[in-house]
Amino acid sequence: MNCLVLGGGGFIGTHICEGLLREGHHVRVLGRTQPDKANKLILDNVEWIMGDFSNLETIKKSMMNIDIIFHLVSTTNPKTSNDSPIIDMSSNVIPTLQLLDAAKDQGIKKIIFASSGGTVYGKPSIIPIPETHPTFPTSSYGIHKLTVEKYLHMYFELYGLDYSVMRISNPYGEGQLPDRGQGVVATFLNRSLKNEKIEIWGDGSVIRDYIYISDVVSAAIKLLDYEGKEKIFNIGSGVGKTLIELIEIIEHVANTTLNVNYIGGRKLDVPVNVLDIQRAKKLLLWEPKMSLFEGIERTKLMLK
Amino acid sequence: MNCLVLGGGGFIGTHICEGLLREGHHVRVLGRTQPDKANKLILDNVEWIMGDFSNLETIKKSMMNIDIIFHLVSTTNPKTSNDSPIIDMSSNVIPTLQLLDAAKDQGIKKIIFASSGGTVYGKPSIIPIPETHPTFPTSSYGIHKLTVEKYLHMYFELYGLDYSVMRISNPYGEGQLPDRGQGVVATFLNRSLKNEKIEIWGDGSVIRDYIYISDVVSAAIKLLDYEGKEKIFNIGSGVGKTLIELIEIIEHVANTTLNVNYIGGRKLDVPVNVLDIQRAKKLLLWEPKMSLFEGIERTKLMLK
Repeated sequence: MNCLVLGGGGFIGTHICEGLLREGHHVRVLGRTQPDKANKLILDNVEWIMGDFSNLETIKKSMMNIDIIFHLVSTTNPKTSNDSPIIDMSSNVIPTLQLLDAAKDQGIKKIIFASSGGTVYGKPSIIPIPETHPTFPTSSYGIHKLTVEKYLHMYFELYGLDYSVMRISNPYGEGQLPDRGQGVVATFLNRSLKNEKIEIWGDGSVIRDYIYISDVVSAAIKLLDYEGKEKIFNIGSGVGKTLIELIEIIEHVANTTLNVNYIGGRKLDVPVNVLDIQRAKKLLLWEPKMSLFEGIERTKLMLK
Repeated sequence: MNCLVLGGGGFIGTHICEGLLREGHHVRVLGRTQPDKANKLILDNVEWIMGDFSNLETIKKSMMNIDIIFHLVSTTNPKTSNDSPIIDMSSNVIPTLQLLDAAKDQGIKKIIFASSGGTVYGKPSIIPIPETHPTFPTSSYGIHKLTVEKYLHMYFELYGLDYSVMRISNPYGEGQLPDRGQGVVATFLNRSLKNEKIEIWGDGSVIRDYIYISDVVSAAIKLLDYEGKEKIFNIGSGVGKTLIELIEIIEHVANTTLNVNYIGGRKLDVPVNVLDIQRAKKLLLWEPKMSLFEGIERTKLMLK
């Protein structure tokens, strides 16, 4: 199939491009910059369009002869989004609405959207969290992801534009940049190798669901052909780990002791987030294959 | 209490202002125009500020010494919103985010927001629809209302700014303008009195929940003092009527036969929407008092 990957130069995007190419699909990327360290498979095979997804003419051009669009763009992260919810909405939801209108007009088959399993639910009332759980985000990032999900549903109902939503937990793996406000594994691993101090908001008891990037990619590939009635899928490991456990694994893998500084908790951090992944297992015949230990080992190997 | 009513010159707003004044509250209105036909109570007692709620300076000025804000502004309706979801988002959500920031900074006690029980749920899976029902709107209007609800929740969680959401069904009553794309009772009643033709999308089997305006006002008044944990309330009659039944009541009240023209259905119309109002009944000790028949009779009397 002909695939357009919006945000294909980013961490998740690069891996999805690789996965699509390996499956024999044609891949076009719309991105602001070509990645510095792209591998040969990507450099040789991806059709690059440089530009901003908020530009309507660029979006229209990049959609020509495309079947499936992966929408992986976010201009913000959970932390920065709350500095200005107005910028968050304007720079994410508004361009996505332009995209949806163009996709509807150009007869795109399906849009696969990277949403956020870590932020759309807010404080969970049940663990693990199923897709049917109420959604009360405590970050603008979570609200913008949710708003895009709602518009995807509306365009499907009104115009038949199909879609899938991946509510991804905390992805990690090779190629993730440290110190970007997202990607705690990359940040901790990087600092452990440099013997730098780590700062943790709270007491380290916060529980999260970490998923290795290749498991995200295999889910994305499964969604290419999925035509069933469910639109929203949690994509996580289904396993919760505290920050302290994560640090222990990293210390073990990196064979070092981390210098951790605990500082006051933030209100936007929910105490626990673990995704229920039964829906994806059952309907996509997908399951995550990498343990956190093995995933961190692999990530470390690639850093060298 | 000192109340600011945003959109206080509109149909719902005018009635809420009256209700607040009767209860002894001080009322300030921010609106683009003063209503032509305001009654003496309102003209003598409401403090008017002319201006647009999207203007930050105007919003800040109008919030001075205010305890409670009623946010009743919408620049679109369910029909027009889908013409341009971008305009819908930009002109409703973005100014509301400005408002929330200002309200947080100025120590406003509570925001009471008029959301839409008729559009936020989308196609219901259960009737009557409880507040916990999934929300998949089929109009941008419904999505913008939902997005504002999510931000209200976020500002409550992060900054303690309290809020209540009224998910109002289809309000009607004296003062509602006909032919505005919302307010089918006003439109039908007006046309019946003028012997004009009525156009109905679909076959008239569409079921809706109509609530008399004074019942909306009594709910709004109850919310002024409510400090419980639930934030979202369905405000409807809890009773469903088909368009055909509505037309029969209007024919009876107006003592005439309506000239109805049935045209093709629209995808954005869900077949049935009736709200479950048990939460408001139980927690607010509120209940709607006006039957549809009596409400339409009253509305007709006020038209003369």
